[in-house]
Order: sequence, then C-alpha cells, then structure tokens
Amino acid sequence: MVIVMREGAEASEIERVVRAVEELGLRPHRSDGELRSVVGVVGDVSRLSEEVFLRLPGVEQVVRLEQPYKLASRAFRPEGSRVWAGPVEVGGPGIVVMAGPCSVESREQLLEAAQAVREAGAAVLRGGAFKPRTSPYSFQGLGAEGLRLLAEARQRTGLPVVTEVMAPQEVELVAEYADVLQVGTRNMQNFSLLKELGRAGKPVLLKRGMSATVEEWLLAAEYVLSHGNPDVILCERGIRTFEHATRNTLDLSAVPLVKRLSHLPVVVDPSHATGLWELVTPMALAAVAAGADGLLVEVHPDPSQALSDGRQSLRPDRLARLVEQADAVAQAVGRWILRPEHVAAPRRAAAAGR
Amino acid sequence: MVIVMREGAEASEIERVVRAVEELGLRPHRSDGELRSVVGVVGDVSRLSEEVFLRLPGVEQVVRLEQPYKLASRAFRPEGSRVWAGPVEVGGPGIVVMAGPCSVESREQLLEAAQAVREAGAAVLRGGAFKPRTSPYSFQGLGAEGLRLLAEARQRTGLPVVTEVMAPQEVELVAEYADVLQVGTRNMQNFSLLKELGRAGKPVLLKRGMSATVEEWLLAAEYVLSHGNPDVILCERGIRTFEHATRNTLDLSAVPLVKRLSHLPVVVDPSHATGLWELVTPMALAAVAAGADGLLVEVHPDPSQALSDGRQSLRPDRLARLVEQADAVAQAVGRWILRPEHVAAPRRAAAAGR
Amino acid sequence: MVIVMREGAEASEIERVVRAVEELGLRPHRSDGELRSVVGVVGDVSRLSEEVFLRLPGVEQVVRLEQPYKLASRAFRPEGSRVWAGPVEVGGPGIVVMAGPCSVESREQLLEAAQAVREAGAAVLRGGAFKPRTSPYSFQGLGAEGLRLLAEARQRTGLPVVTEVMAPQEVELVAEYADVLQVGTRNMQNFSLLKELGRAGKPVLLKRGMSATVEEWLLAAEYVLSHGNPDVILCERGIRTFEHATRNTLDLSAVPLVKRLSHLPVVVDPSHATGLWELVTPMALAAVAAGADGLLVEVHPDPSQALSDGRQSLRPDRLARLVEQADAVAQAVGRWILRPEHVAAPRRAAAAGR
Amino acid sequence: MVIVMREGAEASEIERVVRAVEELGLRPHRSDGELRSVVGVVGDVSRLSEEVFLRLPGVEQVVRLEQPYKLASRAFRPEGSRVWAGPVEVGGPGIVVMAGPCSVESREQLLEAAQAVREAGAAVLRGGAFKPRTSPYSFQGLGAEGLRLLAEARQRTGLPVVTEVMAPQEVELVAEYADVLQVGTRNMQNFSLLKELGRAGKPVLLKRGMSATVEEWLLAAEYVLSHGNPDVILCERGIRTFEHATRNTLDLSAVPLVKRLSHLPVVVDPSHATGLWELVTPMALAAVAAGADGLLVEVHPDPSQALSDGRQSLRPDRLARLVEQADAVAQAVGRWILRPEHVAAPRRAAAAGR
Repeated sequence: MVIVMREGAEASEIERVVRAVEELGLRPHRSDGELRSVVGVVGDVSRLSEEVFLRLPGVEQVVRLEQPYKLASRAFRPEGSRVWAGPVEVGGPGIVVMAGPCSVESREQLLEAAQAVREAGAAVLRGGAFKPRTSPYSFQGLGAEGLRLLAEARQRTGLPVVTEVMAPQEVELVAEYADVLQVGTRNMQNFSLLKELGRAGKPVLLKRGMSATVEEWLLAAEYVLSHGNPDVILCERGIRTFEHATRNTLDLSAVPLVKRLSHLPVVVDPSHATGLWELVTPMALAAVAAGADGLLVEVHPDPSQALSDGRQSLRPDRLARLVEQADAVAQAVGRWILRPEHVAAPRRAAAAGR
Repeated sequence: MVIVMREGAEASEIERVVRAVEELGLRPHRSDGELRSVVGVVGDVSRLSEEVFLRLPGVEQVVRLEQPYKLASRAFRPEGSRVWAGPVEVGGPGIVVMAGPCSVESREQLLEAAQAVREAGAAVLRGGAFKPRTSPYSFQGLGAEGLRLLAEARQRTGLPVVTEVMAPQEVELVAEYADVLQVGTRNMQNFSLLKELGRAGKPVLLKRGMSATVEEWLLAAEYVLSHGNPDVILCERGIRTFEHATRNTLDLSAVPLVKRLSHLPVVVDPSHATGLWELVTPMALAAVAAGADGLLVEVHPDPSQALSDGRQSLRPDRLARLVEQADAVAQAVGRWILRPEHVAAPRRAAAAGR
Repeated sequence: MVIVMREGAEASEIERVVRAVEELGLRPHRSDGELRSVVGVVGDVSRLSEEVFLRLPGVEQVVRLEQPYKLASRAFRPEGSRVWAGPVEVGGPGIVVMAGPCSVESREQLLEAAQAVREAGAAVLRGGAFKPRTSPYSFQGLGAEGLRLLAEARQRTGLPVVTEVMAPQEVELVAEYADVLQVGTRNMQNFSLLKELGRAGKPVLLKRGMSATVEEWLLAAEYVLSHGNPDVILCERGIRTFEHATRNTLDLSAVPLVKRLSHLPVVVDPSHATGLWELVTPMALAAVAAGADGLLVEVHPDPSQALSDGRQSLRPDRLARLVEQADAVAQAVGRWILRPEHVAAPRRAAAAGR
Repeated sequence: MVIVMREGAEASEIERVVRAVEELGLRPHRSDGELRSVVGVVGDVSRLSEEVFLRLPGVEQVVRLEQPYKLASRAFRPEGSRVWAGPVEVGGPGIVVMAGPCSVESREQLLEAAQAVREAGAAVLRGGAFKPRTSPYSFQGLGAEGLRLLAEARQRTGLPVVTEVMAPQEVELVAEYADVLQVGTRNMQNFSLLKELGRAGKPVLLKRGMSATVEEWLLAAEYVLSHGNPDVILCERGIRTFEHATRNTLDLSAVPLVKRLSHLPVVVDPSHATGLWELVTPMALAAVAAGADGLLVEVHPDPSQALSDGRQSLRPDRLARLVEQADAVAQAVGRWILRPEHVAAPRRAAAAGR
C-alpha cells in the first residue's frame, strides 16, 4: 500500500500519516519527491481499509499494490528515480556508458583502459577486482589491490567507478573505494549480501539473475531498498535459455517492462548477454532504442590477451564508434549519451551538494 | 562447400563447374549475383579436396562451410538477399512495416484495418485466414473466405498481403491469393509443409520456432531453399523461456547474429514476442536499431473486441506514432521506413520486371 | 462441463441428456464406461447453470472444468482409458515396452531388430519410415517401402507396429500399415495433422512438443479426441531446457501430473530424452516407478552403424537386461512388464472382440 | 590430471609423487582409498607429458581429464565416496531419507515433526533456521534459536540434522549445531560461501542451482573440495524451465549422469522440485529407481498451517507410506532404505572412529 500526499502537503501532515502507519503495527517508508511526498506501508494490509488514511489531512490517494514489491514499484515514485554514480546521474535524460575491462589485471592495463574508455566517451569506469568464477582454478581477481588501482584510475580520469562486491564482509571495503557497488548475476538472491548493501551508503547496481523473473529481480531490489538504501540501478544482462549460439539471451523487453513496473533506472550489459563482441554494438543500440538509461560494456586494450571474457570485449576504437552511433539513436528517441566532459563540472557541485 | 566464381566468369565456365559437381555425385545449386556467380555444393564433401574445383577456369575460391546449412549461409550470397513481397522490397535499405489484425474476422473489420494501417505507414498487410490455435474450441479462422477478403483489401489499398499457410495441401490455394506465405512458429519444423513451399512460387516468411535454435531455424529455411524457392524472409517472434511476464522472450540478438550467418532478410514481430501492446513500440524501435529489415505488427481497429490476441494489438493511431519513431531510429542507423506511397510507383515497374 | 450419469442410468435417460445439450447449441461427447456413462459438453458454458442438467433423470452430477480441455480430462473418464495397440493393451496394469530402431534402414536390419526386441521382451515394435530431420540433407527415411517392411516384421514376430506420420495426406497410407500412428515432437501442434488423425481409425501416440506445456499437450490430444478418435496415448520424450549435457531434459514429473489431470495412458521415451544410451536404463526404471504405462526405447542391432541416433540406441542384450530390471521395479509398484508371449493369446481374442 | 598409484604402493612412493607435482609448480591433492591412493594435479597441465609421472616408482597410470573439475571427477575416486551425516552413511548401499519441515517454526512444531519423521522411517532430520526468501517481507526463519531447537530435536530422536547456511560469516555458528551444512539453490555459486565451507569441518549438502548445468554444479562442488573439505553430497532439486505446472522441472537424468561423472553421492529433493505434495511420492520412487543415494522430503505435522511451502509438504503418515514404497523399489534395484533403528548402533562406533 502506498499513500500519496497532496502537492504542498505540510510536514506535520506527513508526519501524522507516518505515525498512523506505525500505530497500526505497520512499517512506514517515507519518500519526498520534488512535488509531493509518498509513504509506503510495509506489512499485512489485506484487511486494512484505505479509508483509514484517506481521511487524514493532506492525503491525496491510497494505492493498493498487487505486486509483492512496494518500495521498488512505480507507484511509490511515479516520476522515476535518479541515482548518482559519483558525479554522474543515472536515470535522467542522459544515457550513461559504463565501460572498462572485465577484470583489473594490472596497473598498466587498467590505467590504459580507463584513459581509453574516457576518450571513447564512457562516463563511468567499470572493472572487476573480486571476480566470481565458475571454476576455482580460474583467475579470481586482484582483490583489494584491484580496488586501489580502480581508485587511482578514477583520480586520473575523473570517471567514477563501479565494481563488484561478492560477500557481506567485503561490502565495507569495496564501498570505501567504489562509487557504485555491483551485485553479480550469481548473487542476485544472495540475501545476506543484499541486506548488507542496504546499509552500504553507496548506490547498488543490481544485475538480474540469469534465471530470475522480473518479479524476483524487483524483489531483490526491494531487499536493498527496505534495508535503507534508496539508490538501486537495475542491470539486464541476459537470461539463460536453450539457445547457446549466444552466451545468454538478452531480454530487452525487460527494459520497457521494468520501466512500467518500477521507478528504478535500468541499464543493459550487451557484453555478458551475447558473449560475442560482434553483437555488442547492435544490441547496445537496441537497448538505447528500448529505453535503457545506460550501457555496461566490456572494453579491453587488447582483447586477445584478456585474462577473462576476451571473446566479448570491444577494442577502444570500437567503443568510440558505438558511442557515436548510440548517441544518434538516443537523439532519435529524445535523449543523448552523457559524455565525460559534461560530467566534469557538475561533479564537484554534486559532491558538494550531497 | 561453396564455389565462388571470378567476377566476369563466362557462362561456359560456370556450367563446367556445375557439371563437375554433378559428376562427383553431388548436387549443385547455382546462384547468379550482380557481380559474380556462386555454386553451392550439397552432399558429403568431407573427403573432397578444394583443389578439384580450384583448378577449373573461372573459379576464384572454394569455401568449406562449418555450418550444416549451405544455401542459407552468408557465404553463398555475401551481398545479402532481397525478397519481393509483391511490389515491396524486403532486405534493402528501406525497412518494411507489415501490419494488420491477427485474424481476418469480417469484411468490414479487415477493410477498415487495411486502410488504417496503410494510412499509418505500413507497406504490407498481414492477417490470418487459417489460424493455428492451441485449443480446438477456439476460433479457427475464416479459411478460404478470409483469403478472398485479403485479396479484396489488397486491391483497395495496393498493399501486398502476407498470410499464414498451415498444411501442404493448402499451399496452392493460399499462394493464389497471398503475396507472401507465412509459416507459423508451430510449423517451423513441419518438413512436409516446408518442402511444399519450396515449390510454391511465392516468397515465404518463416517464423522462428518458439524453441528453435538459430541453427535449426536456418536449416528450416534451407528446406525451402533447397526445394527450389530462393525467396525466404526470416521472422524472429520470441522464444519460450522461464519468464512469463511477457508472452515470449524476444531474442533480438538473433537479428545481428543471423545477419552474419545468413544472407536472408530478417524481420521482427514484437506483438507475439511480448504479448503486451505497451511493449510493442519500444521493442519495434529496438528491432530497427538492431538491424531488422522489417516489422510485423498486430493492429486492430478495436483491440478490445478482437477474436484473438487483442491484448497485444495496437490501435491504428499508435501504429502511426510507432512508424514515425521507427523512422527516426532507422535514420540514426542510415536507413528509413519504406512508406506505402513510395511503393506505388516501383510496384508496377517491379511487377513488369519479374 | 462434464455430465456424469448414475450407475445403471437407462439408455433413454442418456439420450435425453445428449439431446438437451444439443438443444442448447452445444456439442455433446458421449462416453460409456463400464459402470456409468459420461457426457462431455463442448462450447461456451460460462453462463449456463448446472441446474439445467441436474434436474434431468439419471444425472448424478455435473462437473464444471477449469481446464480448457474436456474430453482429455480425468473427470471425463475417471477410471482411466485403455488403448489397444493391435493386440496389446496400453493403460492397463501391464507396462508395455515398445522398442526398435530409430529408422527403418533395410529389410535385414529391421527383421533382425524386430526379432531381437521381441526376444528381449518388447511387446510392440517401433521404427521410423518417414523421418522428420532437422537438415534437408540428412537421411529422410525409406517412406512407403519402410512401411511395407514394418508390416512384414509384424507378420514375422506378431508384434504390433508404431510408426510416425508427418503429414495429413500421408495419414491414410500409414494407417493402412501401422497399428499405432505416432506424432513426433515437432508436429505436436501441427493442427491439420491432428484433425486428420481424429478420423484415422487407428490409435495415436502423441509425443509432447519439446517446448510444450502439459496443458498444451493435453489440448493437442483434445484435437484428436474432439475430431472423433478416442484412442490417444501420450508420450513424454524430454523438453528443451538450458541443460545440454543431455539431449533434452526428461520431465518425469509430467507422468504423475498427467495421470491426475487426464485419463489417457502415458508412456516415456528415455532414448530421445537423454540422447545417451548409458542413461536409458536408469531413466526407464525411473519412468516405471513414476507410474508410466509404457516405454519407448531405441534399439539397434549395431548402434555404431545406425543412420540416425546411434548414440542413444541400446544393443538388444542391454534391452533384455532393462526389461528384467524394469519388471522388478514394476512389481515393486504393483505392476509388471507385459511380455510378448503373453500377448499372443489375448491378441486374437481382442481382435475378435473389436 | 590424476595420478593413480599401484595397489600397495609405499608411503614414500606416494610422497615422492606429491613432491614431484609441487616441484613442477602445480598443486597436489592426495586421496587415500582402501585399495590405492590417487594424487590429483591442479594447475595448467596442457603442456605436461604423462611420462614425467609414469616413470616414478609406484605409479600405475596417469589420467588426463577433459572435464574442468578434478577432485569431483569419478576418475579421482573410482569406487565412489561415502559421506557421514553424523552416524548415517550417505553414498553406501542404504538409501537415506532426510525429512522434516521447510522452516523451523516453533519448539512444539519441530519436536513433533522430528518424532514423526523418525517414526515414518527417516534417518536424518532436515529443517531451516536461516531461510532464503524471495521477498524481504516473508518469514526469514528463526535463526540461531532455530539451530538450538534442531540440536534439541537431534538429542531427543537421535537423528542427525541437516540445515541451511546462507552466509560465510554464519558457517561457524551453523557448523556448531548441524551435522550437515546445506547450500541452497540460490547460493550454489556464492563462491565466498563455498570457500568458507571448504574449511567448515562438516559435510556439505550442495543443492543444484535452479539454472545450473551439471558441469557448473560439479565445479561448485570443486570449490568446496579444493578448499579442504572432502565431504560433499550433491542434491538435485529441480531446474527452471518454461513449464510452470510444477514449481521446477526435476531433472532426474542428472542422477545417473552425475554418478558417471563424479564420485560424490547424489540425493534428490522431490518436494521443492515439484511444489505439489501429490507428486512427491511418485518422484521419490523414480529417484530411487534412477540411482539416488537419498531423498530430501518436506514433512509438516499440519501442512495447511506451515509458514512456508505448505503446498508441497507431506503429512507424516504419507511419509511412512512413501518410505515403505521406496524400500520396495530400492530392493528391486539391489538396495534398501536405511532405517533410523539401524543407525543407532553404528552411530557411536562411527563417531569414535572419526
């Protein structure tokens, strides 16, 4: 159940609604938008009448949700959420390209890649320090050392950093270095991790589980949201199907569907979805046309030498071409690609304002 | 195995190659492109050396295919195929919108819909006379009467017609009325039907089976091609996965993948793929951005009254908006939507030239 | 809706019910069981009250079905159906092993295989004359010649024959030679074929489509039943999933599920399901334990030389061992394997009684 | 690569082989069977000749593995592994029934359930204290209090306890109370958890991920094995497919397949696989026939009142009937159900011997 306040409702009215929810043994979640405030009601409301709240001053309407998620639902924030990846806004009209190598392999590789993706037009740097690998004998990432290299790359390029966190006990460490904490597809229902991320104080990029329904995905986001962190970015990265010509099947229809069901920003990872660099650009363009708020693209200075996922990595020059084309498509749908040079100034302002 | 002739190879050289293939107990498939001819070799070539053909005059190269399909492979016609749906070219730079009701329900409904989709910008009329329905108790279509109504709608609007054929013994009848013969997803591996369509003398629009791999789909096309019909349009319409929030999962990555593997045009059906009209437009735009040569869209004058699939049908005014937006995206990738008014003139010419 | 008559209801009472159904513009399907008769009502009954029928003499109860299938539902024949494959009863307490080569390849191969499977304990001979092959370049079967060889094998061994039919126009020919007409997985929703089989006068073995839900499978059976053929055997043969270590994923839980939903016999094909001969015996035993009424097993005198599917074919000696073990498991669940020697005598009786 | 020593090879010979592996920069994993020892070689052996080890004294053969898992492969321990769940042997000829409620809900419910499942024939008690729930608003389990109740139930019934652990930081706590640590389907690729379980000192029951291939499942086991814990029991619990008539699709063919690929015991959970109590018994029987080493069955004293998964829980009387029938099927395949009364005596002995 979501209680929508009138435009210009007074603070005391909102507080009274919050108290009323608590007095009924339910949990209130208040969210103050630009125009109006909304109070989510968590708990069993099946026998509760909307009338209880409608008669309180300042209440405009009460929406009973059929979906099992509440804080993630579009009704909770009809105007859509914007999440700040450091100085970069995700979920606004500008579309954000997040790019970088699958794994941080060495200082030289990372700094070269970071510089290259910035020049190619990416506004966020991605790269894995902790790597979830199917085999225990595969390269497991550089760990804390990788985090330090990512922070150095940020300092040199100005690009904020998104990187994966794999375990609850590592959240604090990763949050110290990263601007956005990524949850990988295999951990989408790692509930201990999600709860910890609810207390992380940094935005979360939540990849869809490779066999998760859209509803399960939004409920995973609800774990983070209901544990106190309002900043979640969803990431579609392909689902597992019978078709093995591509690594996964990119479910692009999830983008407009999630946009209707939820207020959270959605980005798309065409690299892991397809597993083939030749398909990354066409699927990136398709994602933009379908309404995605961003792209997550694997780029490696020398894909043939990558320690992981080289087959799906773009060369930097191909990323530059992708960004150009994606910008053309974005403009066709009334948006644009957010370039790193536009981020530079607002960065400091945003940092100051937060 | 595919034998590529030199530019300007003489007819006698090509014929000699064809004979050489036959003398080895194999079947030749000759295809004359604008610049050069190509001869496909069907049969067991595992122990055959390329040298046998390379030493014949006029032969430029011999390509050994790893794929099990030959006539459908990109190597067989590297420049891509163009298929004529009546006067409308599919597979050229112009992107073709095929639209209409799921089922032909009545003369009034069809003529109204046909006029409406033409005005909205569709260049081809689609509509089902023979309907494959999961339940024997559902409306099974108007049959032959539906075909006659489609022909009347073509006469009134000038739009060529694509409609489904479900059984080998109906191919001749449907081919008499339709410009393009559609094979539905449930019949993609109805091999008796595919063989008959190889002799139909009309282009075939081959929908991907809902659980068919891309390779199986191309092999189904190979059935039609190898039985004598060079005009096949592929249609991605969603695959069956665990996700039931949408009716199927639209596998858009199949579009650029098939474009690499095959020379055949590919169109996309966002209506059946998603099953939700709200997702049709964003997925149509995504399909165009991914490189599709056309769209198959369900439109109904009054979706709430449709005898089948109303939930996924667009109203005509929404199709008009879709075409506009799709045209903007198409131009961002260097193409455009082929409007019905542009077809009028070339139609007669093309008809004369065939 | 299904109208259940009282035990011992008179013929005139049943006829009156049938007429009442017709007078309401609906279609009656009468089925006379040993104890009582049942009348299925096909058509839109959503606004019809059960009272209409309950007040007629001889009516015991009226069951409103939630499922979309009627004649296939368990409610229509609560005691279960038994289908005769020539002299062999399928759906009774005896479990039927149907075995033979994937394809009929030659007279010698087939007669040797038929003799071998009979000796190993199979009561029905299976073998393909018309073969649905993914590639147009693969062996397509011997066709009519294969049918004649199957008939000869039946004459020599006494085993009834099940073989596939692929197209409506071939139903009559195949029905002339075969005891049971098989519909392959790719044709489960070939509705033209299903309708024709409704008029075939021979039992139908309906394989589940590789991506068909249980409901769609039962609706496909409903096509055959509602077009006049009451004798349908269902066959689970594996569904398509992300797992490719086996050819398909055998959905054994479909066996007890279908037994609850429908009165039709269910057999299991562990050969196509797994694609690996090593897994055929364990999965055959599991099928028997799960309640299957029969097994469809591929056997080849020399699997390494088979023209199709050799990898999944058992050698005859392994089939003999499978039958022994399956009989032990069957007895543990109160059933037994129906041996060919037990069929000999009842055969003539059954034939006479029909 | 796996180095198999001769029967009766001397300790010094084995140690020399271990040193040789280390000197090559690779990691040795030694396993001493009853008859012979085996040394697994972990690391890149692609350029290493078998000769290097074959010429060492005591070495019988060197097996190069194609699979990416080594310690989990059948070659590493051809005779099969037996894992002790407290006093109960899993992987021997006796088949183990593990039963209990989905969640520990209260002292009364658990003690009643524990007594009931022991009387029905279960030899191991299962029950969840930490519950992975799709929604943050669902009952999350009693946590540590649930663990204490499980320990009390063990003391009263003598049944060892298997319960789930969800996070690395909880492994130590859960290991203090439980006899077997369960990894749930959503955590199969929670690599931080798997690594921690490698050091847990208690056996691990590793459920297959709902979209994990058999190879990924064995690699997840390899994580536990290679981090020092040799005691892993695999549990097939259904995979996610397009079919939603059952909660998941039980992939029973994985049982004989894994038995060929790996030496680890495999148990089956028909409750979560089907989600319908009516299907639990037939699928349990099928699992035994297919070669499973145990069953994991949800039982609740009063399923209609269960806080989670009531729809799939058996009543205790139905479990008793299941055990009887499963014993009959087990005997048909040369095995039997291990009854709790048979466990009493060996328990102390085994505990002493460890």
